[in-house]
Amino acid sequence: MKKMSVFGLEGLPLIKPGDDLADLIVSLTKSNDIEIKDGDIIVIAQKVVSKAENRVVQLDEVNPSEKAWRIAAETGKNPKLAELILRESKRFLKTSQQTIIVEDQRGIVNINAGIDKSNVKGIRCYALLPKNPDESARHLRSRIMALTGRRVGIIISDTYSRAFRRGQVNFAIGLAGIAPFFDYRGSEDLFGYVMQVKFTAIADELACAAELVMGQGKEGVPVAIIKGSHGMSFSEEHTFKDLVIGEKDDLFRDVWRSHHDSKHINHKTKDKPKGANH
Amino acid sequence: MKKMSVFGLEGLPLIKPGDDLADLIVSLTKSNDIEIKDGDIIVIAQKVVSKAENRVVQLDEVNPSEKAWRIAAETGKNPKLAELILRESKRFLKTSQQTIIVEDQRGIVNINAGIDKSNVKGIRCYALLPKNPDESARHLRSRIMALTGRRVGIIISDTYSRAFRRGQVNFAIGLAGIAPFFDYRGSEDLFGYVMQVKFTAIADELACAAELVMGQGKEGVPVAIIKGSHGMSFSEEHTFKDLVIGEKDDLFRDVWRSHHDSKHINHKTKDKPKGANH
Repeated sequence: MKKMSVFGLEGLPLIKPGDDLADLIVSLTKSNDIEIKDGDIIVIAQKVVSKAENRVVQLDEVNPSEKAWRIAAETGKNPKLAELILRESKRFLKTSQQTIIVEDQRGIVNINAGIDKSNVKGIRCYALLPKNPDESARHLRSRIMALTGRRVGIIISDTYSRAFRRGQVNFAIGLAGIAPFFDYRGSEDLFGYVMQVKFTAIADELACAAELVMGQGKEGVPVAIIKGSHGMSFSEEHTFKDLVIGEKDDLFRDVWRSHHDSKHINHKTKDKPKGANH
Repeated sequence: MKKMSVFGLEGLPLIKPGDDLADLIVSLTKSNDIEIKDGDIIVIAQKVVSKAENRVVQLDEVNPSEKAWRIAAETGKNPKLAELILRESKRFLKTSQQTIIVEDQRGIVNINAGIDKSNVKGIRCYALLPKNPDESARHLRSRIMALTGRRVGIIISDTYSRAFRRGQVNFAIGLAGIAPFFDYRGSEDLFGYVMQVKFTAIADELACAAELVMGQGKEGVPVAIIKGSHGMSFSEEHTFKDLVIGEKDDLFRDVWRSHHDSKHINHKTKDKPKGANH
């Protein structure tokens, strides 16, 4: 029997700019009676990393550019928020009423460049994503390893809306020390068939698993520790960037373009098999 | 401290058409020394459900229609496989070299209508998705509840490629007994701010968590039991269909349409704030 355990650490204090998040997490494992061991994965919600890195912005201090005013008019968003989204983005992929989907400065395709109000203190304060979540993850990892002497993997996570499916799930936006994939390609299945496409994004699955003990409301459980996941392997080389698929490789690219021309398949009048007339 | 445990049940025999999968799973919990309890979630990989429901097709028995030949020419796929994909689909959203993305008969947007070769016995045999995965889940649930006297939730899962992100993750394609979402909308965050969009697709996150003990290769672990997930609630009303987002509500709809017109944001020449000239 395979067993994976996911622990949600309770009691993290409210995080302030400059806080030593690694040290707080290690203390938290002690008060939660969890021992960090080699191979553990620590999943940390983006919001507490952003707070520790002073990535919280008071909207009143933002001066919207002309472009931001234009976007605000187009989307109905606050121009100051539109300005923040602009600053955090490489390019805008879609703007419509209340919706801004961008490729952000980190290469993530997300809504509002990941800028979010929830669990941020101050009525007009918003959290931006960490500037470089991979670097944040690497920094947290080396601090935690120094404090504990254990070899761990770190995932920084955020919740995402998806195409085609309702609701949000937690995905990795930064990582350190682990390989984000478990690659079945080239290996055999139960019957010796060599698999050609299976390539599991376990970093995203680990983030999902963590969310099931975290919660995003006032539960205040932004850190989870995962022990015993299948397919996890250490790697010093991988970064979140590996999870970003280029436009060229994205099978879903342009799916809506043809979508509008797509016809429902008529299952009633069956096509004749080719050659049936011969 | 919150704790979730995920168990991968080992030793399931190869499934044949007509097998009583519920009974086999309950026996398996015993041989794995796991007790099924009220509130447990049992995640079952689609492939074993398809096998038990006799949804495996030998390609040589398929007679391709003219439409299938046309699609085969367009995509480079085997015309018999193209015919199966056609039969399983409501409409084709995208066809290109080696790629067919469809809205399948169940309303799922997926590649090749979910038809897959791996872990299926027989060199030219492919598994189709269960005809009605919600019904399969309901059936499995009532059998397992009858056998154990415990109130459980069932998720039937399959792995999915995603837009924008590399690699596949496991998502729910059928469910019974559980609510697929944990809805934060209208509840307060740490600072009393009322959350407006957070609406977590926990059924998908549970499927992801299960995959971390399952594996898709010759490990042969297609069933996982999850104990202690946060936000899980019983519901007799929900179906997989709730996870399918309508085109109208899908924020990512048409993202590629504007995509091609999207311009990189020039961060070097800063826009002047509006009114700066006055």
